[in-house]
Amino acid sequence: MNLIKTLIPAAAVIALPQVGLAQETAASGETPQHTQYILTSLLFLMGGFLVFWMAAGFAMLEAGLVRSKNVTMQLTKNIALFSLAAIMYWLVGFNLMYPGDGWTITGFLGAFSPTVLEPVGLADTETDLSYASVGSDFFFQLMFCATTASIVSGTMAERVKLWPFLLFVVVLTGIIYPIEASWQWGGGWLSEMGFSDFAGSTLVHAAGGFAALAGAIVLGPRIGKFTKDGKVVPIPGSNLALATLGTFILWLGWFGFNGGSQLAMGTIGDMADISRIFANTNMAAAAGAVAALILTQVRFGKVDLTMTLNGALAGLVSITAEPLAPSLFQSLIIGGIGGVIVVFAVPMLDRMRIDDVVGAIPVHLIAGFWGTFIVAWTNSDASFVTQIIGFVAIGVFVFVVSYVLFTVIKSTVGLRVGEEEEINGLDMAELGMEAYPEFSKG
Amino acid sequence: MNLIKTLIPAAAVIALPQVGLAQETAASGETPQHTQYILTSLLFLMGGFLVFWMAAGFAMLEAGLVRSKNVTMQLTKNIALFSLAAIMYWLVGFNLMYPGDGWTITGFLGAFSPTVLEPVGLADTETDLSYASVGSDFFFQLMFCATTASIVSGTMAERVKLWPFLLFVVVLTGIIYPIEASWQWGGGWLSEMGFSDFAGSTLVHAAGGFAALAGAIVLGPRIGKFTKDGKVVPIPGSNLALATLGTFILWLGWFGFNGGSQLAMGTIGDMADISRIFANTNMAAAAGAVAALILTQVRFGKVDLTMTLNGALAGLVSITAEPLAPSLFQSLIIGGIGGVIVVFAVPMLDRMRIDDVVGAIPVHLIAGFWGTFIVAWTNSDASFVTQIIGFVAIGVFVFVVSYVLFTVIKSTVGLRVGEEEEINGLDMAELGMEAYPEFSKG
Amino acid sequence: MNLIKTLIPAAAVIALPQVGLAQETAASGETPQHTQYILTSLLFLMGGFLVFWMAAGFAMLEAGLVRSKNVTMQLTKNIALFSLAAIMYWLVGFNLMYPGDGWTITGFLGAFSPTVLEPVGLADTETDLSYASVGSDFFFQLMFCATTASIVSGTMAERVKLWPFLLFVVVLTGIIYPIEASWQWGGGWLSEMGFSDFAGSTLVHAAGGFAALAGAIVLGPRIGKFTKDGKVVPIPGSNLALATLGTFILWLGWFGFNGGSQLAMGTIGDMADISRIFANTNMAAAAGAVAALILTQVRFGKVDLTMTLNGALAGLVSITAEPLAPSLFQSLIIGGIGGVIVVFAVPMLDRMRIDDVVGAIPVHLIAGFWGTFIVAWTNSDASFVTQIIGFVAIGVFVFVVSYVLFTVIKSTVGLRVGEEEEINGLDMAELGMEAYPEFSKG
Repeated sequence: MNLIKTLIPAAAVIALPQVGLAQETAASGETPQHTQYILTSLLFLMGGFLVFWMAAGFAMLEAGLVRSKNVTMQLTKNIALFSLAAIMYWLVGFNLMYPGDGWTITGFLGAFSPTVLEPVGLADTETDLSYASVGSDFFFQLMFCATTASIVSGTMAERVKLWPFLLFVVVLTGIIYPIEASWQWGGGWLSEMGFSDFAGSTLVHAAGGFAALAGAIVLGPRIGKFTKDGKVVPIPGSNLALATLGTFILWLGWFGFNGGSQLAMGTIGDMADISRIFANTNMAAAAGAVAALILTQVRFGKVDLTMTLNGALAGLVSITAEPLAPSLFQSLIIGGIGGVIVVFAVPMLDRMRIDDVVGAIPVHLIAGFWGTFIVAWTNSDASFVTQIIGFVAIGVFVFVVSYVLFTVIKSTVGLRVGEEEEINGLDMAELGMEAYPEFSKG
Repeated sequence: MNLIKTLIPAAAVIALPQVGLAQETAASGETPQHTQYILTSLLFLMGGFLVFWMAAGFAMLEAGLVRSKNVTMQLTKNIALFSLAAIMYWLVGFNLMYPGDGWTITGFLGAFSPTVLEPVGLADTETDLSYASVGSDFFFQLMFCATTASIVSGTMAERVKLWPFLLFVVVLTGIIYPIEASWQWGGGWLSEMGFSDFAGSTLVHAAGGFAALAGAIVLGPRIGKFTKDGKVVPIPGSNLALATLGTFILWLGWFGFNGGSQLAMGTIGDMADISRIFANTNMAAAAGAVAALILTQVRFGKVDLTMTLNGALAGLVSITAEPLAPSLFQSLIIGGIGGVIVVFAVPMLDRMRIDDVVGAIPVHLIAGFWGTFIVAWTNSDASFVTQIIGFVAIGVFVFVVSYVLFTVIKSTVGLRVGEEEEINGLDMAELGMEAYPEFSKG
Repeated sequence: MNLIKTLIPAAAVIALPQVGLAQETAASGETPQHTQYILTSLLFLMGGFLVFWMAAGFAMLEAGLVRSKNVTMQLTKNIALFSLAAIMYWLVGFNLMYPGDGWTITGFLGAFSPTVLEPVGLADTETDLSYASVGSDFFFQLMFCATTASIVSGTMAERVKLWPFLLFVVVLTGIIYPIEASWQWGGGWLSEMGFSDFAGSTLVHAAGGFAALAGAIVLGPRIGKFTKDGKVVPIPGSNLALATLGTFILWLGWFGFNGGSQLAMGTIGDMADISRIFANTNMAAAAGAVAALILTQVRFGKVDLTMTLNGALAGLVSITAEPLAPSLFQSLIIGGIGGVIVVFAVPMLDRMRIDDVVGAIPVHLIAGFWGTFIVAWTNSDASFVTQIIGFVAIGVFVFVVSYVLFTVIKSTVGLRVGEEEEINGLDMAELGMEAYPEFSKG
């Protein structure tokens, strides 16, 4: 052993030139842990900026589907709700959703504290190298929180007051969403029970849809939407080019939404999974669009662009609970049925006299249920019963809290604009600024 | 010390492991194979979502360049054609284009079978580590297929029926494009011959342009476009802001189109090549725009925005056959001449009484020829003769098959809307839904 | 050999692993240098395409904020200025800005020569592995140069002639911007002095703002903007949906703008820093929007969407000088004050009878000063005095050179369209092409 000691210095010297060999080894080997950390953080940043882009998508979709007299208001709501979500998620949402060991009531209520990022110039001893940077994780998760709020604004368009709506957004993004999401993604009771929701068909989309449903009921329909003798009056959107642009933006952003939810990009297994997710997500959207395209032709004798757009979105929502496990063919079926749901659910809501301006409830709530339920078909770790329990639990929680909150707002500061304001349009009445001041209205 | 010399072979073996040293070695070494696989797959996913975004670009460009009475139809066609392309490319296109060892007729006709992705949680023994995940490759290639169809819809706008057009799209994306693309990118006879088309000036753009040309001829010009005494009546687009947005979207997406076509991002050589491609692609687009800007001023006495937008696109098409080899200056020349082509080819088509609503034939077919031909200037592996042969072969195949197919459609289910429908606009006549219902028409 | 055998037990423990252990070592180790080079180059390409996208954002923002009679012109200017910037930055800008050891006057004036990219298929011996590919760096930096020019076009909208404006752009992007930017980012005298401007609150945004200010003064206000008795006449933008879209695009692009300015993504420290930057950038934008939202409600009794959009942009400009060092809370303060600045600076400029069509001077120049100044609060390496010196130096240089240049243009070829052209709109008068020809004007 002494001899070896003697040899070590020389061996070290000899070892140096092995650069070539070591390189060759590395070049055929696995990804170093630092690189894995970088790649997963990069996934979160890329996923995050793509989901950020969805905020623009909702803004354009909704601006295109309301009448021109309410466009400025709808744009204002969308940029305001995103900004408020960003602040609330920092102030309390992130730690409420991911309490780690700091639950207030374990499994049910997280921790109340603002988000603190890692120090500048982070050293490898200061972080958990097996995951990703806190900043990238926060950035990514924040975008999901904002998405939930975006869903609500579309349903309640053309009649809800600005500030009361934003007050609801503050509570939704700071409290309601983080709490229900913590039950699953924060490691709470739903995840313990075996509920499965990969990227948020229930946690994000149906949750937003339930809040929207509560809002639509408390608020009531727009003037003129339903006649006294039970007829439904179609109110066409003012700009279908914007609505289509918004749909394409959402479709693009969804690759980040579902792909980023793999939460890891450091191994070939993770990378191949993300690739599956991208391919399946695209297939489900395409199938939803084609299903609605064909079905509107068959049912109504004419293709309906708005339903086709919503069909694509419903396909996306449907695949979001499980974008990884399905084959491409299964994704086609799952997304296609999402598109079918839209074509049947939109008239159904009309019959229930619930006025959902952009069709967010069919797309996000009903297709969200379908996507959550059908996870058990392709993912053997999930059960149909548990999927229903999870969906119902989150639905009841979000709906009841939202309903109470909207009712309190309605009976205090008021939730809805006056009749005259609504008829004249919210833009002039509430904001004094038209979106298209130079174009005369037909 | 002599002893040590004797020991060296063994010492070399011993030396490798030392954790600290190995890390240091790794930190100055090459990229491990797993990381290369991840990076190349990432390139495909990023490239893929950027090229997906081009679908939105075509939709906006075309919606902006048609009259407002046909905007809903144009939007419907664009979202429908992308969705159908996604399904057809899965059902048959991908394996028809990349048959590997499974050609039906070697070098000419690929394999007929749907795409199957790799299993979830892929292990490193289950895949070819020297390339990328199948899902990422499929996702990326699918977007090219959809692009080909997008090109056709612009030319045939404002008069073609929805479902017959979509029937053509099904055949184009499922059969025609995959077959001709297999001749080069699938390792078929054109690649054997030495044809060179890096990212698809011919395979994607000219192919789309030839299909569009066949469609325009079979369909005939719009009512009122050409008068009986031979005059050409300009029909301005309804929304140049959308058309400009579409052009910017396409320009952005093209970085993924050309950059992703490097097909590898795991080595510094590949990465530096992708960087060259990004810089050259941007230069060619800029040069095409500036060339059209100056030339329209000189020729017509006024700058023409539509031609400037098409100049940028023609610059992009021109550099697509070889975005890697040229210097920045060569890219400026190649792209600039693309812009010049637009300014001369648009009136030339008019003189031939071919009605190409958005200028897709000059941009994609004629600039596609220019880009394909000029590869031999900067890439010493290419020859002018072979480039022409490849272009002509694909052109003849796509044009003839498309022409026959359009003719069959025309003489069976019909290809063109009735005269009254065309004059009233396809939106009200075929879809019953206007894109801008509140804005009165001038 | 016997001796070696004796040594084997010890050696074997160390040696056996080779591939396996080396992989494991690699898998728990640092990022190899080649991978670092790839990741940093990737950061530049991603950052670059995101900042490219900002060109579309400026185009949409400006097209939405001008009257419909000037939209085609504004779109033309935006695509033309980006294209010219791309050419000028290649021809002279890049080497003027980053002269390395080739300064013409050390610290003050860089080198005059076109950009040359690295060869195709770069080998690791041909490049500096500690940084990134030249092509990616050029691509990224070029986008910053173009951004500077985009800022100017908004302020001078609705009255400046096309070609004289583009002449200014040529000088701005080829000479003015590269020179002042070289003082800091090229390693010139300002960086020697300790000035701190992470991503360009001063170098890009305030510089663009100073050029815009010079242009606005030389050009004078639009006809009808200020009445003889000192009243300010609001001239509403024609399309707030486009303006909002533009703002979302700019917000998205800014992640690349600030994140890419980390200039490295190869270590966990760099990656965590980029994550901080993304999170801080988003927070500052959100805070700017919310501040303007609340303040316009309080000051004017009504929320102002245009100011809210500009508030978000001012938040972004404010955080750009130092997006890394601040905590999320500090970012909220910095961005929020940016939003406050907009609400006060827009009327202030009006009182000074400076007509800034889109509010670019408050957003880019004044918030740019605020962001530059406040760096010393969060970054201990910066001093308030040096920050002011740097800002003033660049401001004086850009303003004086721009003022002289605009004056020369004005007194030779002319800078402003005739009165009749301005009243009729630049689209018909200068270009003969309306942006929305079918929509009658109110």
